[in-house]
Amino acid sequence: MQFDLSKSIQVLERTPAVLKALLEGLPKDWTAPNEGPDTWSPYDVVGHLIHGEVTDWIPRAEIILSQSGTHFTPFDRFAQFENSKGKNLQQLLDEFAVLRSQNIAKLQSFNLTEEDLKLEGTHPALGSVTLKNLLATWTVHDLNHIVQISRVMAKQYKEEVGVWTEYLAVLH
Amino acid sequence: MQFDLSKSIQVLERTPAVLKALLEGLPKDWTAPNEGPDTWSPYDVVGHLIHGEVTDWIPRAEIILSQSGTHFTPFDRFAQFENSKGKNLQQLLDEFAVLRSQNIAKLQSFNLTEEDLKLEGTHPALGSVTLKNLLATWTVHDLNHIVQISRVMAKQYKEEVGVWTEYLAVLH
Repeated sequence: MQFDLSKSIQVLERTPAVLKALLEGLPKDWTAPNEGPDTWSPYDVVGHLIHGEVTDWIPRAEIILSQSGTHFTPFDRFAQFENSKGKNLQQLLDEFAVLRSQNIAKLQSFNLTEEDLKLEGTHPALGSVTLKNLLATWTVHDLNHIVQISRVMAKQYKEEVGVWTEYLAVLH
Repeated sequence: MQFDLSKSIQVLERTPAVLKALLEGLPKDWTAPNEGPDTWSPYDVVGHLIHGEVTDWIPRAEIILSQSGTHFTPFDRFAQFENSKGKNLQQLLDEFAVLRSQNIAKLQSFNLTEEDLKLEGTHPALGSVTLKNLLATWTVHDLNHIVQISRVMAKQYKEEVGVWTEYLAVLH
């Protein structure tokens, strides 16, 4: 499928509802464990998504649009461990929903043209990227973390499925 | 985490809402493609989940409870290609929600004891399994297919993310 702004927004705008459907009201047995050392819990992932809304996707789009070719500020992949402190999962889910809604409104207000989508920025590690790449990545990044949350939850029952483990790719 | 019936139901009962949040109203560009030959689209997966509600989880639990040790009927992993014919995704999502709700009510009506959870059935390929294994697998199976749907959707933008592909595990 080729990049299409409206199709990207169709996915981006539904992620807060997907996360709420998946996590809202669940006890910590499901939302607090991770996959082992240096991995993230569902709770951690929601904090990471919030940090992306604040510092990554729209700020980087604005950098590209204001001065094509400019270097991005590196993204802090561990900021959520500080920023989520004292907040419960419900607060994070609500915060993410508000930020995402604001960011989609901002994205739409850019009135992007095909020419805009070709403008470039410089990623600190990956080098030259286009605005189109950035917006496609934002979309895939959402789905990547829905995968991660579902996988981390599934693994809590890793032992309990018995011999069925063979049929459950998500556990391996 | 150890198996717990109420914690399993917490996940099982939310899957219809997760699938609706993820898929409802999306155009076929997102829901009809798969990952290549002999793989499933999001649409196919919902049909597969429906077939599981009708022929797999609760029927197998009933077999175990009625006569421990009995052989299960093999599950048809391709039934959805016939059964979903003529139905659109919205119809499948609604059908799954109704069936799941009925099956959770049935599961609760069993009033399962710890002893019941140890009862066994015989899987056609895997051999001896317990009712606990079956119910844990039902739960993980839901999450496994949420992972699959999200991954298949993500892959539609595989080319569009450019060099960011390196950071997006879901694409590989």
